[in-house]
Amino acid sequence: MDQSTDGQREAPADPASAWLATAGAAAREAARALAMSPLAARNTALMAGAAALRTAEAEILAANEADLAACSATGAFRDRLRLDPARLAAMAAGLAEIAAQPDPLGRVLAEWERPNGLRFRRIATPIGVIGMIYESRPNVGADAAGLCLKSGNAVMLRGGSEGLRSARAIQAAIEEGLRAAGLPVAAVQIAPEADRAYVGAMLEGGGVIDLIIPRGGKSLVERVQREARVPVLAHAEGLCHTYVHASADPAMARSVVANAKMRRPGVCGATETLLIDAAIAPSLLPLIIADLAALGCEFRADPRARAILPELPAAAPADFDTEWLAPVLSVKVVDGIAEALAHIARHGSSHTEAIIAEDRAAAEAFLAGIDSAVGLWNASTQFCDGGEFGFGAEIGIATGRIHARGPVGLEQLTSFRYVVEGSGQIRP
Amino acid sequence: MDQSTDGQREAPADPASAWLATAGAAAREAARALAMSPLAARNTALMAGAAALRTAEAEILAANEADLAACSATGAFRDRLRLDPARLAAMAAGLAEIAAQPDPLGRVLAEWERPNGLRFRRIATPIGVIGMIYESRPNVGADAAGLCLKSGNAVMLRGGSEGLRSARAIQAAIEEGLRAAGLPVAAVQIAPEADRAYVGAMLEGGGVIDLIIPRGGKSLVERVQREARVPVLAHAEGLCHTYVHASADPAMARSVVANAKMRRPGVCGATETLLIDAAIAPSLLPLIIADLAALGCEFRADPRARAILPELPAAAPADFDTEWLAPVLSVKVVDGIAEALAHIARHGSSHTEAIIAEDRAAAEAFLAGIDSAVGLWNASTQFCDGGEFGFGAEIGIATGRIHARGPVGLEQLTSFRYVVEGSGQIRP
Repeated sequence: MDQSTDGQREAPADPASAWLATAGAAAREAARALAMSPLAARNTALMAGAAALRTAEAEILAANEADLAACSATGAFRDRLRLDPARLAAMAAGLAEIAAQPDPLGRVLAEWERPNGLRFRRIATPIGVIGMIYESRPNVGADAAGLCLKSGNAVMLRGGSEGLRSARAIQAAIEEGLRAAGLPVAAVQIAPEADRAYVGAMLEGGGVIDLIIPRGGKSLVERVQREARVPVLAHAEGLCHTYVHASADPAMARSVVANAKMRRPGVCGATETLLIDAAIAPSLLPLIIADLAALGCEFRADPRARAILPELPAAAPADFDTEWLAPVLSVKVVDGIAEALAHIARHGSSHTEAIIAEDRAAAEAFLAGIDSAVGLWNASTQFCDGGEFGFGAEIGIATGRIHARGPVGLEQLTSFRYVVEGSGQIRP
Repeated sequence: MDQSTDGQREAPADPASAWLATAGAAAREAARALAMSPLAARNTALMAGAAALRTAEAEILAANEADLAACSATGAFRDRLRLDPARLAAMAAGLAEIAAQPDPLGRVLAEWERPNGLRFRRIATPIGVIGMIYESRPNVGADAAGLCLKSGNAVMLRGGSEGLRSARAIQAAIEEGLRAAGLPVAAVQIAPEADRAYVGAMLEGGGVIDLIIPRGGKSLVERVQREARVPVLAHAEGLCHTYVHASADPAMARSVVANAKMRRPGVCGATETLLIDAAIAPSLLPLIIADLAALGCEFRADPRARAILPELPAAAPADFDTEWLAPVLSVKVVDGIAEALAHIARHGSSHTEAIIAEDRAAAEAFLAGIDSAVGLWNASTQFCDGGEFGFGAEIGIATGRIHARGPVGLEQLTSFRYVVEGSGQIRP
């Protein structure tokens, strides 16, 4: 994952590649400046950017109106695109919250001395230039800009075409913040056109992008993961499981499962499949199902669950591979931890799994056996969130095994460098 | 960087992809077993593997003889392919040393509690399945197998075709070690044929490889970095600089520069370019050059260095972009830290840089301004080595900004997982 050298790049023919080369060179320069900038300058930029968002409310909402007028989509997509004074205020407050977080840079991550007197320190540094590819949700761009700025990274944003006017208006406010802090405006840049070629150019990396973070639906993320020539931090789906062990406290199981599924069924940390031990299912499953049904949940049940509750609709095999993102729950009765782990290994997405159990040994076996970014014991899968982890805002959630896993906040947007102090040591 | 799901893979048509799919599935299973294996089992496998390498000395050396007989290459390439009893003993000792290292798995990397009572732990876990692509140096395969095994990762090895017989014979010994420990032999597998299609298949990843580590010459590493569809830890080159600041202690500068260049000119941590401040160059540069010349070094000097030492050959512009890996040094006189940093930013490879200075503020400015994996103050760049860092053996050195940078040892071959303990918390 070395950086390509500038000298090896040829002059790009198409506008997207030309933009990547030019804006990328400016981003690299800006990243160097950010890496050496004092915390006060980065915080000033965030606070001034938040103020500019508030000051420019009319312009930003007008730009958003124009985006909405040109957008034929309806439903959830349109709602995510829409800004209003409250959402804009939340966006500004988000930048201010990021400013209030401690500096993720310069932390001494490890420190040791060797017998020859060399003193080693591993120090947190920015990653460099981050490419953020997202859909038409204006606040994602502002959050990403804020998190990257605070962590000393330059960011190149490519939002959904439907939100381009909104993104530009937000961008103007962020640039005002950078100027107020004396930081290079190239620290935060957006792709100038709605053309999808810009996504392609960013995925190639062009020697200027160190890391791509996609944020959006499964098809967007999967395209990025398939085509990117640079490292990607992301999750394509959150097919999360809650496993109710035979030792579970029934009241806790009812409460946690209801929350894990129904608090917000559309988030990636929502439970999609309930696994429940055969030993406890006859008494407990009907209560869990009744709770969920009262909240409006539907079910897809395996034969053993239907043996207990024949009125439940039968699950098709593909249902256990489906991230519902909706008030629908797949239900399966298992014979203990081994079967639960085998099911998760086969159907899970390495995101988040929970066990409800009073038996500590069972919980430990489960938590050791899953291969997911987050494992919870006696808590709702909906806690998989940067804020709930105490990370402050998050730029996304990662399910890969390299670099960061789980919620990606400020610390996860850093890399490190070794600094070695000697007194003239030479190597024998 | 999610794992592809098995169900989405089609039956591969060519032998290399077929091998990747079949061996990869076995590797994934083996990785799960390794991840849950006790330290004692992994250490037993390493010790038994070391013993098997010693026992099989005759077979391994015979296989190596056959490789050498079939190999038309001469010089350094042939020397790297060659095994002898001493090199084989060193290989076995290397496995035993890895066994003696502490367990990189299960370490609690961070631990905190939230106001709602949730207890968070970040725990070191294996990465999964590692693809190791290397050239015809038999010990690289044995070292990689040992490091991956200890860190709980399965490894798929693809060594250079000239060393395939040697690699197979070594592999047999490692398998014996795995069997002795009751661990799956699929934990360490080698590509069965010399066909380069196996490299291509591994670079595609096929949903089974989590990380590729290439080890070899610049062209191999650059191919891997260009073509890999999965994350890569590597360095393509080590164009390391030593900068002698005006405040340098002259005797220390002479000793460190001579070591940084000439201890082993062919390693990636060898200094390739000397930068020296104009203020000290007239008095010190002649002494440094005389020391190096006495050791057999040649020079490529910029005009300002030649103004002091007219007998030095003139550097062509490309010389400052050249990783010599030989007793040749590019030499440039600069006007202080800013010019040194600008030169390194333009010509460096983000690997290792050193400053020789008595002035602490100057050293700190230099170390903060470079964007390299390792920065040294008053020590030789040749210290960029896992052993010298105290990491034990290393599988390579990385210059990217994601996951691990610098020497990649056991700890750097791990990922992590969050384990969250609650008492029935639900998310509001």
